[in-house]
Amino acid sequence: MTHLLPLADDPAPERADAARNREAILAAALRLVRTRGVGCVTMETVAAEAGVGKGTLFRRFESREGLMGAVLNESETAWQASVISGPPPLGPGAPPMERLLAFGHSRLRTNLTHAELIAAAGRPGARSAAALSFANMHVRYLLGELGVTGDLLMLATALLAPLEMVVLDQQVNTEHISLERIEAGWDDLVHRVVGR
Amino acid sequence: MTHLLPLADDPAPERADAARNREAILAAALRLVRTRGVGCVTMETVAAEAGVGKGTLFRRFESREGLMGAVLNESETAWQASVISGPPPLGPGAPPMERLLAFGHSRLRTNLTHAELIAAAGRPGARSAAALSFANMHVRYLLGELGVTGDLLMLATALLAPLEMVVLDQQVNTEHISLERIEAGWDDLVHRVVGR
Repeated sequence: MTHLLPLADDPAPERADAARNREAILAAALRLVRTRGVGCVTMETVAAEAGVGKGTLFRRFESREGLMGAVLNESETAWQASVISGPPPLGPGAPPMERLLAFGHSRLRTNLTHAELIAAAGRPGARSAAALSFANMHVRYLLGELGVTGDLLMLATALLAPLEMVVLDQQVNTEHISLERIEAGWDDLVHRVVGR
Repeated sequence: MTHLLPLADDPAPERADAARNREAILAAALRLVRTRGVGCVTMETVAAEAGVGKGTLFRRFESREGLMGAVLNESETAWQASVISGPPPLGPGAPPMERLLAFGHSRLRTNLTHAELIAAAGRPGARSAAALSFANMHVRYLLGELGVTGDLLMLATALLAPLEMVVLDQQVNTEHISLERIEAGWDDLVHRVVGR
Protein backbone atom coordinates (compact mmCIF):
# COMPACT_ATOMS: atom_id res chain seq x y z
CA MET A 1 0.00 0.00 0.00
CA THR A 2 3.03 2.34 -0.08
CA HIS A 3 2.37 3.33 -3.68
CA LEU A 4 -0.92 3.03 -5.50
CA LEU A 5 0.30 4.21 -8.87
CA PRO A 6 2.92 2.27 -10.79
CA LEU A 7 6.39 3.79 -10.40
CA ALA A 8 8.46 4.60 -13.47
CA ASP A 9 10.61 1.47 -13.24
CA ASP A 10 7.88 -0.94 -12.15
CA PRO A 11 7.39 -3.71 -14.66
CA ALA A 12 4.35 -3.19 -16.88
CA PRO A 13 1.25 -4.81 -15.28
CA GLU A 14 1.08 -7.51 -17.98
CA ARG A 15 4.72 -8.47 -17.39
CA ALA A 16 4.25 -8.62 -13.61
CA ASP A 17 1.16 -10.80 -14.12
CA ALA A 18 3.06 -13.09 -16.45
CA ALA A 19 5.90 -13.42 -13.94
CA ARG A 20 3.47 -14.23 -11.11
CA ASN A 21 1.76 -16.74 -13.35
CA ARG A 22 5.07 -18.37 -14.19
CA GLU A 23 6.06 -18.55 -10.52
CA ALA A 24 2.69 -20.10 -9.60
CA ILE A 25 3.07 -22.75 -12.31
CA LEU A 26 6.67 -23.60 -11.28
CA ALA A 27 5.73 -23.76 -7.59
CA ALA A 28 2.80 -26.07 -8.41
CA ALA A 29 4.99 -28.28 -10.62
CA LEU A 30 7.73 -28.51 -7.98
CA ARG A 31 5.14 -29.42 -5.33
CA LEU A 32 3.82 -32.22 -7.55
CA VAL A 33 7.33 -33.45 -8.39
CA ARG A 34 8.18 -33.68 -4.68
CA THR A 35 4.97 -35.41 -3.62
CA ARG A 36 4.28 -37.70 -6.61
CA GLY A 37 7.64 -38.10 -8.32
CA VAL A 38 8.66 -36.77 -11.75
CA GLY A 39 7.19 -39.71 -13.67
CA CYS A 40 3.64 -39.00 -12.45
CA VAL A 41 3.64 -35.29 -13.29
CA THR A 42 1.88 -34.41 -16.56
CA MET A 43 1.01 -31.07 -18.16
CA GLU A 44 -2.62 -31.74 -17.15
CA THR A 45 -1.90 -32.26 -13.44
CA VAL A 46 0.37 -29.18 -13.32
CA ALA A 47 -2.27 -26.99 -15.04
CA ALA A 48 -4.93 -28.20 -12.60
CA GLU A 49 -2.67 -27.71 -9.54
CA ALA A 50 -1.68 -24.19 -10.68
CA GLY A 51 -5.25 -23.27 -11.63
CA VAL A 52 -4.37 -22.31 -15.21
CA GLY A 53 -5.39 -23.68 -18.59
CA LYS A 54 -3.24 -26.27 -20.36
CA GLY A 55 -2.85 -23.77 -23.20
CA THR A 56 -1.12 -21.31 -20.86
CA LEU A 57 1.30 -24.03 -19.79
CA PHE A 58 2.27 -24.87 -23.36
CA ARG A 59 2.50 -21.16 -24.30
CA ARG A 60 4.94 -20.49 -21.46
CA PHE A 61 7.04 -23.69 -21.49
CA GLU A 62 6.48 -25.14 -24.99
CA SER A 63 6.58 -28.77 -23.84
CA ARG A 64 6.84 -31.06 -20.82
CA GLU A 65 10.61 -31.07 -21.44
CA GLY A 66 10.67 -27.27 -21.27
CA LEU A 67 8.62 -27.23 -18.06
CA MET A 68 10.82 -29.88 -16.43
CA GLY A 69 13.95 -27.88 -17.31
CA ALA A 70 12.43 -24.80 -15.62
CA VAL A 71 11.39 -26.87 -12.57
CA LEU A 72 14.99 -28.13 -12.30
CA ASN A 73 16.31 -24.55 -12.09
CA GLU A 74 13.55 -23.62 -9.64
CA SER A 75 14.36 -26.60 -7.42
CA GLU A 76 18.10 -25.91 -7.38
CA THR A 77 17.47 -22.25 -6.48
CA ALA A 78 15.03 -23.21 -3.71
CA TRP A 79 17.54 -25.73 -2.34
CA GLN A 80 20.39 -23.19 -2.31
CA ALA A 81 18.12 -20.70 -0.52
CA SER A 82 17.32 -23.27 2.17
CA VAL A 83 21.07 -23.87 2.71
CA ILE A 84 21.86 -20.14 2.90
CA SER A 85 18.93 -18.88 4.90
CA GLY A 86 16.52 -21.74 5.69
CA PRO A 87 15.85 -23.21 9.14
CA PRO A 88 18.62 -25.19 10.91
CA PRO A 89 20.19 -27.70 10.77
CA LEU A 90 20.43 -27.25 6.95
CA GLY A 91 20.39 -23.46 7.29
CA PRO A 92 22.47 -21.35 9.71
CA GLY A 93 22.16 -21.75 13.48
CA ALA A 94 23.17 -25.39 14.06
CA PRO A 95 26.71 -26.62 14.93
CA PRO A 96 28.82 -27.17 11.77
CA MET A 97 28.85 -31.01 12.00
CA GLU A 98 25.03 -31.08 12.20
CA ARG A 99 24.85 -28.69 9.27
CA LEU A 100 27.26 -30.81 7.23
CA LEU A 101 25.31 -34.03 7.83
CA ALA A 102 22.01 -32.27 7.07
CA PHE A 103 23.59 -30.87 3.91
CA GLY A 104 24.62 -34.33 2.68
CA HIS A 105 21.22 -35.92 3.32
CA SER A 106 19.40 -33.04 1.70
CA ARG A 107 21.76 -32.99 -1.29
CA LEU A 108 21.34 -36.74 -1.72
CA ARG A 109 17.55 -36.47 -2.00
CA THR A 110 17.65 -33.31 -4.10
CA ASN A 111 20.13 -34.86 -6.54
CA LEU A 112 17.97 -37.97 -6.95
CA THR A 113 15.02 -35.74 -7.88
CA HIS A 114 17.24 -33.66 -10.15
CA ALA A 115 18.47 -36.76 -11.97
CA GLU A 116 14.83 -37.51 -12.85
CA LEU A 117 14.14 -33.89 -13.82
CA ILE A 118 17.23 -33.83 -16.05
CA ALA A 119 16.06 -37.01 -17.79
CA ALA A 120 12.51 -35.59 -18.12
CA ALA A 121 13.93 -32.36 -19.52
CA GLY A 122 15.70 -34.41 -22.20
CA ARG A 123 19.15 -33.25 -21.15
CA PRO A 124 21.07 -36.41 -20.29
CA GLY A 125 24.46 -35.67 -18.81
CA ALA A 126 23.46 -32.12 -17.84
CA ARG A 127 25.30 -31.06 -14.71
CA SER A 128 25.34 -27.52 -13.46
CA ALA A 129 28.84 -26.14 -12.80
CA ALA A 130 27.26 -23.27 -10.83
CA ALA A 131 25.33 -25.64 -8.54
CA LEU A 132 28.45 -27.72 -8.02
CA SER A 133 30.57 -24.71 -7.18
CA PHE A 134 27.94 -23.52 -4.66
CA ALA A 135 27.91 -26.94 -2.96
CA ASN A 136 31.71 -27.11 -2.90
CA MET A 137 32.03 -23.64 -1.37
CA HIS A 138 29.50 -24.50 1.32
CA VAL A 139 31.24 -27.77 2.26
CA ARG A 140 34.62 -26.02 2.35
CA TYR A 141 33.16 -23.37 4.67
CA LEU A 142 31.79 -26.03 7.05
CA LEU A 143 35.07 -28.01 6.99
CA GLY A 144 36.85 -24.79 7.96
CA GLU A 145 34.37 -24.22 10.81
CA LEU A 146 35.11 -27.78 11.96
CA GLY A 147 38.83 -26.97 12.12
CA VAL A 148 39.77 -29.37 9.31
CA THR A 149 43.08 -28.45 7.69
CA GLY A 150 44.55 -29.57 4.38
CA ASP A 151 43.44 -29.13 0.77
CA LEU A 152 39.81 -28.26 1.53
CA LEU A 153 38.87 -27.97 -2.15
CA MET A 154 39.92 -31.59 -2.70
CA LEU A 155 38.28 -32.79 0.53
CA ALA A 156 35.02 -31.02 -0.34
CA THR A 157 35.15 -32.61 -3.82
CA ALA A 158 35.66 -36.02 -2.18
CA LEU A 159 32.64 -35.51 0.11
CA LEU A 160 30.43 -34.35 -2.77
CA ALA A 161 31.49 -37.03 -5.26
CA PRO A 162 29.43 -39.88 -3.69
CA LEU A 163 26.39 -37.56 -3.93
CA GLU A 164 26.85 -37.19 -7.71
CA MET A 165 23.74 -38.19 -9.62
CA VAL A 166 25.62 -40.80 -11.65
CA VAL A 167 26.82 -42.53 -8.45
CA LEU A 168 23.46 -42.32 -6.66
CA ASP A 169 21.57 -43.53 -9.73
CA GLN A 170 23.73 -46.66 -9.87
CA GLN A 171 23.33 -47.36 -6.15
CA VAL A 172 19.59 -46.69 -5.92
CA ASN A 173 18.25 -47.81 -9.28
CA THR A 174 20.66 -50.62 -10.22
CA GLU A 175 21.99 -51.99 -6.92
CA HIS A 176 18.79 -51.17 -4.95
CA ILE A 177 20.72 -49.90 -1.94
CA SER A 178 18.44 -48.09 0.53
CA LEU A 179 18.69 -44.34 1.06
CA GLU A 180 19.21 -45.03 4.77
CA ARG A 181 22.31 -47.12 4.06
CA ILE A 182 23.67 -44.50 1.64
CA GLU A 183 23.09 -41.78 4.25
CA ALA A 184 24.77 -43.83 6.98
CA GLY A 185 27.71 -44.49 4.64
CA TRP A 186 28.03 -40.78 3.91
CA ASP A 187 27.91 -39.92 7.63
CA ASP A 188 30.70 -42.45 8.26
CA LEU A 189 32.76 -40.88 5.45
CA VAL A 190 32.26 -37.39 6.92
CA HIS A 191 33.39 -38.52 10.38
CA ARG A 192 36.48 -40.19 8.92
CA VAL A 193 37.37 -37.12 6.83
CA VAL A 194 36.77 -34.64 9.65
CA GLY A 195 38.49 -36.80 12.27
CA ARG A 196 37.96 -36.35 15.98
CA MET B 1 55.52 -76.83 -31.71
CA THR B 2 53.43 -79.26 -29.66
CA HIS B 3 51.01 -79.86 -32.51
CA LEU B 4 51.67 -79.19 -36.16
CA LEU B 5 48.23 -80.12 -37.47
CA PRO B 6 45.17 -78.12 -36.47
CA LEU B 7 43.23 -79.84 -33.70
CA ALA B 8 39.51 -80.49 -34.08
CA ASP B 9 38.47 -77.50 -31.97
CA ASP B 10 41.09 -75.06 -33.21
CA PRO B 11 39.53 -72.07 -34.91
CA ALA B 12 39.67 -72.23 -38.71
CA PRO B 13 42.89 -70.58 -40.00
CA GLU B 14 40.96 -67.64 -41.50
CA ARG B 15 39.21 -66.94 -38.20
CA ALA B 16 42.46 -67.13 -36.22
CA ASP B 17 44.07 -64.72 -38.70
CA ALA B 18 41.17 -62.33 -38.40
CA ALA B 19 41.37 -62.44 -34.59
CA ARG B 20 45.14 -61.79 -34.65
CA ASN B 21 44.55 -58.97 -37.10
CA ARG B 22 41.91 -57.46 -34.85
CA GLU B 23 44.18 -57.74 -31.79
CA ALA B 24 47.06 -56.10 -33.66
CA ILE B 25 44.84 -53.22 -34.73
CA LEU B 26 43.46 -52.69 -31.20
CA ALA B 27 46.92 -52.88 -29.65
CA ALA B 28 48.21 -50.32 -32.17
CA ALA B 29 45.24 -48.02 -31.55
CA LEU B 30 45.62 -48.25 -27.77
CA ARG B 31 49.35 -47.49 -28.08
CA LEU B 32 48.56 -44.39 -30.14
CA VAL B 33 45.79 -43.28 -27.77
CA ARG B 34 48.18 -43.52 -24.81
CA THR B 35 51.09 -41.73 -26.47
CA ARG B 36 49.29 -39.09 -28.58
CA GLY B 37 45.87 -38.70 -26.96
CA VAL B 38 42.50 -39.71 -28.42
CA GLY B 39 42.05 -36.49 -30.40
CA CYS B 40 45.17 -37.12 -32.52
CA VAL B 41 44.34 -40.70 -33.46
CA THR B 42 42.85 -41.11 -36.93
CA MET B 43 41.96 -44.20 -38.98
CA GLU B 44 45.05 -43.42 -41.13
CA THR B 45 47.51 -43.36 -38.23
CA VAL B 46 46.06 -46.56 -36.73
CA ALA B 47 46.23 -48.38 -40.09
CA ALA B 48 49.86 -47.29 -40.54
CA GLU B 49 50.82 -48.27 -36.96
CA ALA B 50 49.13 -51.68 -37.29
CA GLY B 51 50.57 -52.26 -40.77
CA VAL B 52 47.17 -52.89 -42.39
CA GLY B 53 45.21 -51.09 -45.08
CA LYS B 54 42.63 -48.44 -44.21
CA GLY B 55 40.02 -50.64 -45.92
CA THR B 56 40.68 -53.46 -43.42
CA LEU B 57 40.14 -51.02 -40.56
CA PHE B 58 36.79 -49.84 -41.89
CA ARG B 59 35.74 -53.41 -42.72
CA ARG B 60 36.41 -54.56 -39.15
CA PHE B 61 35.23 -51.50 -37.16
CA GLU B 62 32.91 -49.66 -39.58
CA SER B 63 33.94 -46.18 -38.37
CA ARG B 64 36.25 -44.26 -36.06
CA GLU B 65 33.42 -44.40 -33.48
CA GLY B 66 33.32 -48.19 -33.77
CA LEU B 67 37.10 -48.47 -33.42
CA MET B 68 37.15 -46.16 -30.39
CA GLY B 69 34.42 -48.22 -28.71
CA ALA B 70 36.52 -51.38 -29.24
CA VAL B 71 39.65 -49.61 -27.94
CA LEU B 72 37.69 -48.61 -24.82
CA ASN B 73 36.85 -52.25 -24.07
CA GLU B 74 40.44 -53.29 -24.82
CA SER B 75 41.83 -50.64 -22.50
CA GLU B 76 39.48 -51.57 -19.63
CA THR B 77 40.38 -55.25 -20.02
CA ALA B 78 44.11 -54.47 -20.10
CA TRP B 79 43.76 -52.28 -17.01
CA GLN B 80 41.88 -54.97 -15.07
CA ALA B 81 44.55 -57.52 -16.04
CA SER B 82 47.29 -55.24 -14.72
CA VAL B 83 45.42 -54.93 -11.39
CA ILE B 84 44.88 -58.69 -11.10
CA SER B 85 48.21 -59.99 -12.32
CA GLY B 86 50.45 -57.10 -13.38
CA PRO B 87 53.64 -56.00 -11.63
CA PRO B 88 53.41 -54.42 -8.14
CA PRO B 89 52.48 -52.00 -6.70
CA LEU B 90 49.32 -52.03 -8.89
CA GLY B 91 49.40 -55.80 -9.16
CA PRO B 92 49.88 -58.30 -6.31
CA GLY B 93 53.03 -58.32 -4.18
CA ALA B 94 53.08 -54.84 -2.62
CA PRO B 95 51.62 -53.93 0.83
CA PRO B 96 47.87 -53.12 0.61
CA MET B 97 48.25 -49.36 1.22
CA GLU B 98 50.77 -49.08 -1.62
CA ARG B 99 48.47 -51.12 -3.84
CA LEU B 100 45.49 -48.91 -2.97
CA LEU B 101 47.35 -45.68 -3.75
CA ALA B 102 48.71 -47.15 -7.00
CA PHE B 103 45.18 -48.27 -7.86
CA GLY B 104 43.78 -44.73 -7.42
CA HIS B 105 46.49 -43.05 -9.49
CA SER B 106 46.19 -45.62 -12.23
CA ARG B 107 42.37 -45.46 -12.23
CA LEU B 108 42.49 -41.67 -12.40
CA ARG B 109 44.61 -41.67 -15.54
CA THR B 110 42.73 -44.57 -17.11
CA ASN B 111 39.37 -42.88 -16.48
CA LEU B 112 40.53 -39.63 -18.07
CA THR B 113 41.53 -41.57 -21.19
CA HIS B 114 38.27 -43.51 -21.09
CA ALA B 115 36.23 -40.29 -20.89
CA GLU B 116 37.85 -39.22 -24.18
CA LEU B 117 37.33 -42.68 -25.73
CA ILE B 118 33.66 -42.66 -24.71
CA ALA B 119 33.19 -39.25 -26.31
CA ALA B 120 35.07 -40.40 -29.45
CA ALA B 121 32.91 -43.55 -29.56
CA GLY B 122 29.82 -41.31 -29.59
CA ARG B 123 28.45 -42.78 -26.38
CA PRO B 124 28.11 -39.85 -23.98
CA GLY B 125 27.12 -40.92 -20.49
CA ALA B 126 28.32 -44.49 -21.08
CA ARG B 127 29.58 -46.00 -17.85
CA SER B 128 30.32 -49.66 -17.48
CA ALA B 129 28.59 -51.33 -14.52
CA ALA B 130 30.95 -54.31 -14.89
CA ALA B 131 34.06 -52.10 -14.72
CA LEU B 132 32.64 -50.30 -11.72
CA SER B 133 31.85 -53.49 -9.89
CA PHE B 134 35.37 -54.81 -10.55
CA ALA B 135 36.90 -51.61 -9.13
CA ASN B 136 34.59 -51.67 -6.10
CA MET B 137 35.40 -55.31 -5.32
CA HIS B 138 39.12 -54.63 -5.57
CA VAL B 139 38.97 -51.59 -3.24
CA ARG B 140 36.84 -53.54 -0.73
CA TYR B 141 39.42 -56.34 -0.78
CA LEU B 142 42.27 -53.91 -0.09
CA LEU B 143 40.31 -52.11 2.68
CA GLY B 144 39.77 -55.51 4.30
CA GLU B 145 43.50 -56.27 4.01
CA LEU B 146 44.16 -52.93 5.71
CA GLY B 147 41.94 -53.95 8.64
CA VAL B 148 39.29 -51.30 7.93
CA THR B 149 35.92 -52.21 9.45
CA GLY B 150 32.47 -50.81 8.70
CA ASP B 151 30.31 -50.75 5.58
CA LEU B 152 33.12 -51.49 3.11
CA LEU B 153 30.80 -51.31 0.07
CA MET B 154 29.92 -47.70 0.98
CA LEU B 155 33.53 -46.81 1.81
CA ALA B 156 34.76 -48.28 -1.48
CA THR B 157 32.07 -46.31 -3.32
CA ALA B 158 33.21 -43.15 -1.52
CA LEU B 159 36.85 -43.74 -2.55
CA LEU B 160 35.89 -44.44 -6.16
CA ALA B 161 33.44 -41.55 -6.54
CA PRO B 162 36.11 -38.79 -6.85
CA LEU B 163 37.68 -40.89 -9.65
CA GLU B 164 34.42 -40.84 -11.65
CA MET B 165 34.90 -39.46 -15.14
CA VAL B 166 32.30 -36.73 -14.61
CA VAL B 167 34.15 -35.46 -11.51
CA LEU B 168 37.62 -35.67 -13.08
CA ASP B 169 36.45 -34.01 -16.28
CA GLN B 170 35.18 -31.00 -14.31
CA GLN B 171 38.39 -30.74 -12.26
CA VAL B 172 40.83 -31.21 -15.13
CA ASN B 173 39.09 -29.62 -18.11
CA THR B 174 37.01 -26.87 -16.46
CA GLU B 175 38.86 -25.98 -13.25
CA HIS B 176 42.32 -26.84 -14.65
CA ILE B 177 43.43 -28.55 -11.45
CA SER B 178 46.68 -30.49 -11.94
CA LEU B 179 46.73 -34.30 -11.86
CA GLU B 180 49.36 -34.08 -9.11
CA ARG B 181 46.99 -32.10 -6.88
CA ILE B 182 44.11 -34.50 -7.59
CA GLU B 183 46.37 -37.47 -6.76
CA ALA B 184 47.57 -35.84 -3.54
CA GLY B 185 43.95 -35.08 -2.59
CA TRP B 186 42.97 -38.69 -3.21
CA ASP B 187 45.91 -39.98 -1.14
CA ASP B 188 44.82 -37.70 1.73
CA LEU B 189 41.26 -39.05 1.44
CA VAL B 190 42.52 -42.65 1.53
CA HIS B 191 44.59 -41.99 4.66
CA ARG B 192 41.63 -40.35 6.40
CA VAL B 193 39.27 -43.20 5.44
CA VAL B 194 41.72 -45.96 6.42
CA GLY B 195 42.79 -44.20 9.62
CA ARG B 196 45.93 -45.06 11.48
